[in-house]
Amino acid sequence: MLKKLKQAVLEANLDLPKYGLVTFTWGNVSGIDRDKGLVVIKPSGVPYEDLKAEDMVVLDLEGNVVEGSLKPSSDTATHLVLYKAFPQIGGIVHTHSPWATSWAQAGRGIPALGTTHADYFYDEIPCTRKMTEAEIKGAYELETGNVIVETFKDLDPTQIPGVLVNCHAPFNWGKNPHDAVHNAVVLEEVAKIALHTFNLNQTIEPMDQTLLDRHFLRKHGANAYYGQK
Amino acid sequence: MLKKLKQAVLEANLDLPKYGLVTFTWGNVSGIDRDKGLVVIKPSGVPYEDLKAEDMVVLDLEGNVVEGSLKPSSDTATHLVLYKAFPQIGGIVHTHSPWATSWAQAGRGIPALGTTHADYFYDEIPCTRKMTEAEIKGAYELETGNVIVETFKDLDPTQIPGVLVNCHAPFNWGKNPHDAVHNAVVLEEVAKIALHTFNLNQTIEPMDQTLLDRHFLRKHGANAYYGQK
Amino acid sequence: MLKKLKQAVLEANLDLPKYGLVTFTWGNVSGIDRDKGLVVIKPSGVPYEDLKAEDMVVLDLEGNVVEGSLKPSSDTATHLVLYKAFPQIGGIVHTHSPWATSWAQAGRGIPALGTTHADYFYDEIPCTRKMTEAEIKGAYELETGNVIVETFKDLDPTQIPGVLVNCHAPFNWGKNPHDAVHNAVVLEEVAKIALHTFNLNQTIEPMDQTLLDRHFLRKHGANAYYGQK
Amino acid sequence: MLKKLKQAVLEANLDLPKYGLVTFTWGNVSGIDRDKGLVVIKPSGVPYEDLKAEDMVVLDLEGNVVEGSLKPSSDTATHLVLYKAFPQIGGIVHTHSPWATSWAQAGRGIPALGTTHADYFYDEIPCTRKMTEAEIKGAYELETGNVIVETFKDLDPTQIPGVLVNCHAPFNWGKNPHDAVHNAVVLEEVAKIALHTFNLNQTIEPMDQTLLDRHFLRKHGANAYYGQK
Repeated sequence: MLKKLKQAVLEANLDLPKYGLVTFTWGNVSGIDRDKGLVVIKPSGVPYEDLKAEDMVVLDLEGNVVEGSLKPSSDTATHLVLYKAFPQIGGIVHTHSPWATSWAQAGRGIPALGTTHADYFYDEIPCTRKMTEAEIKGAYELETGNVIVETFKDLDPTQIPGVLVNCHAPFNWGKNPHDAVHNAVVLEEVAKIALHTFNLNQTIEPMDQTLLDRHFLRKHGANAYYGQK
Repeated sequence: MLKKLKQAVLEANLDLPKYGLVTFTWGNVSGIDRDKGLVVIKPSGVPYEDLKAEDMVVLDLEGNVVEGSLKPSSDTATHLVLYKAFPQIGGIVHTHSPWATSWAQAGRGIPALGTTHADYFYDEIPCTRKMTEAEIKGAYELETGNVIVETFKDLDPTQIPGVLVNCHAPFNWGKNPHDAVHNAVVLEEVAKIALHTFNLNQTIEPMDQTLLDRHFLRKHGANAYYGQK
Repeated sequence: MLKKLKQAVLEANLDLPKYGLVTFTWGNVSGIDRDKGLVVIKPSGVPYEDLKAEDMVVLDLEGNVVEGSLKPSSDTATHLVLYKAFPQIGGIVHTHSPWATSWAQAGRGIPALGTTHADYFYDEIPCTRKMTEAEIKGAYELETGNVIVETFKDLDPTQIPGVLVNCHAPFNWGKNPHDAVHNAVVLEEVAKIALHTFNLNQTIEPMDQTLLDRHFLRKHGANAYYGQK
Repeated sequence: MLKKLKQAVLEANLDLPKYGLVTFTWGNVSGIDRDKGLVVIKPSGVPYEDLKAEDMVVLDLEGNVVEGSLKPSSDTATHLVLYKAFPQIGGIVHTHSPWATSWAQAGRGIPALGTTHADYFYDEIPCTRKMTEAEIKGAYELETGNVIVETFKDLDPTQIPGVLVNCHAPFNWGKNPHDAVHNAVVLEEVAKIALHTFNLNQTIEPMDQTLLDRHFLRKHGANAYYGQK
């Protein structure tokens, strides 16, 4: 069942330690088969070096396990909320990658400061508001998804493929699991460079909108001219 | 004698360079067999690449060498104080891992700033008070243990499995040697992220208690729901 | 055609991930055959691990593709402007290496603060002015080249083999593709050290001119005495 | 001639890239045979991967090449001054290791802030005064040695086995070439931790003298009790 997607989710999970985005098991990637309405996600707390494609857990969008003997990631409810709210996305990743997590802990979004950012994120990478006591004590992981969706109520998740959850860490998404991890790598790099930029210039302003447009649209949309397609 | 524990202590010591926690021989791990009341610890100043299980030194809790031809770690007395004061712990590690050591040198505890911290440490990771001249000139390593125990007089060492010794460096502990090193890796990561968080927001306050509860208790205690157990 | 130069350009491109200067495909190296007036450059968006010498694209200085089935780097127009304006150079590299990019995003040139800088760059490594809306909306990559050339109107590109493009990232050049990448590695190291220097001393002034002269001229020009030549 | 020392100097040089202390050829190690009054040093500008024991250059203390077909390191004159002024030392290393170089560029000595420092350096690691125009224009490398010696006029080079040369980079020394490189690794680590300590606490004071004594003397001198000797 969903053999190809399980393999893709496995490989995307294995990319997390390869790119230095995770310590221990601090991350998880999922993918969705939109036709079948099924999500494939990493099992909870299993070390990456032991993961096999058949360990991946299959759930429907309501969170019912359809296949798999292991418990799904404890963050599964967050993933499901995002898949339901953002129909254009095909893969989600959550990590505690250190530079992005520093911004999340500081409660600050990452403003667009240069073309590295603009090549992938078409504006500030937002930080969610703090969650309420009720949200934290209730269905916490589901509410984490909700607060992300709230943050994107006026934003396009395909143009800003990531978010910082306040006091927590980043979530990224993309066309598929591989693409989501790609965006997580970029976010981490952008978070690092932006922090050092503020170190050098405390009053730096976001980049010019024209330059932001130029770089984002060079890589995305109908008039993109980067790469071989 | 204690073959299995010696092997566990050896492997935990070898994990120190693997996780980038030590330069040269700047670290040591021990483990305890509570039934026998015996501690197994790394010999002093032996490079990790030369360590063998049979090099591990066995001592009783009073510091008498029971087995082993090499001198035990110069920090042995600190380990023994901690094993006596904290009966719940089974392994101890000391390193000079650079990010945690920076906080120790700054004389500052690491406040809980986000979920990465909350997943493992159920409050600020404390920094000990400065040691007195008498303590330093006396049984220094034993007094180092005493000042740690004093720091934890109102804290639960199983809920905050680590400490920063003022002007010195961190100690961590856990259920066994492997678990202690695991906590040392987490501390180093948490110390790094916290420092960058302050860089981005000098006036950041500790995280909300409700969120701290949620994350710590998600992974620890009777209602934990992270992982496969 | 230009087999040797293609191989040199390939190898210089492969050096970018080796030296940690690039994430994904965020960099490109070119080389020029001055006699033939032909430039060899990396194709756009192709992962380094898949690159082969025959993938390299050959263009004339007006940007006409003379050989190669792949699209050239999207930054080709910038390279061509530099080859035309700086007849002494034989190779160009563009990366988003993180430390140098931090300075570019901060809009600051890197002052000469010590001998590491002085050994390779005979003064501040300048940062270009911000580009105008017209430049960004027009022939953007060509205008990027123009603003670099403008920045060097009173500077010698052989004595300062690199530049920071404002809000963007660095370009470096050299006698050949290998030498350009060598200078990019140095720039990244110099950018890192300079940032930490400002961290330690916010009011640091550029180094003494006599020391700058001594170190630069120890390695460059008629009286150089570093190395085996 | 001096086969064993050449091999030791070769291996110590190869340790520089292994420990991440050098970029390209930015470092050199030498050793001395005190009985013969001969110094063995790395040739100038030769990449580490190409170095062989027979490439090492043998000089007398006046700088006359006694054996070797390659030019000695351009910093040879500095080494010779130090060997003459500090009769207790047997090996010298110069690098541009980035954290130590940041302190050198900032013109600041590294105060003793914790036990990591105290285990190896028995006080602040000093930064030399700026060199005069005459010194820089004259026998620059020899004068670099002189300004180091001047900095140590009231210091014991065996107790503080390293220095930061203002606007330049560190020199370290030790009992032999291997020991000198060991101290260079420690300096780099200490420089990194100290910079982060100041980041966390701008007004931090040097550590308590009693603690400094305790740690230094635990590892050095007649009453040392660290390690297996």
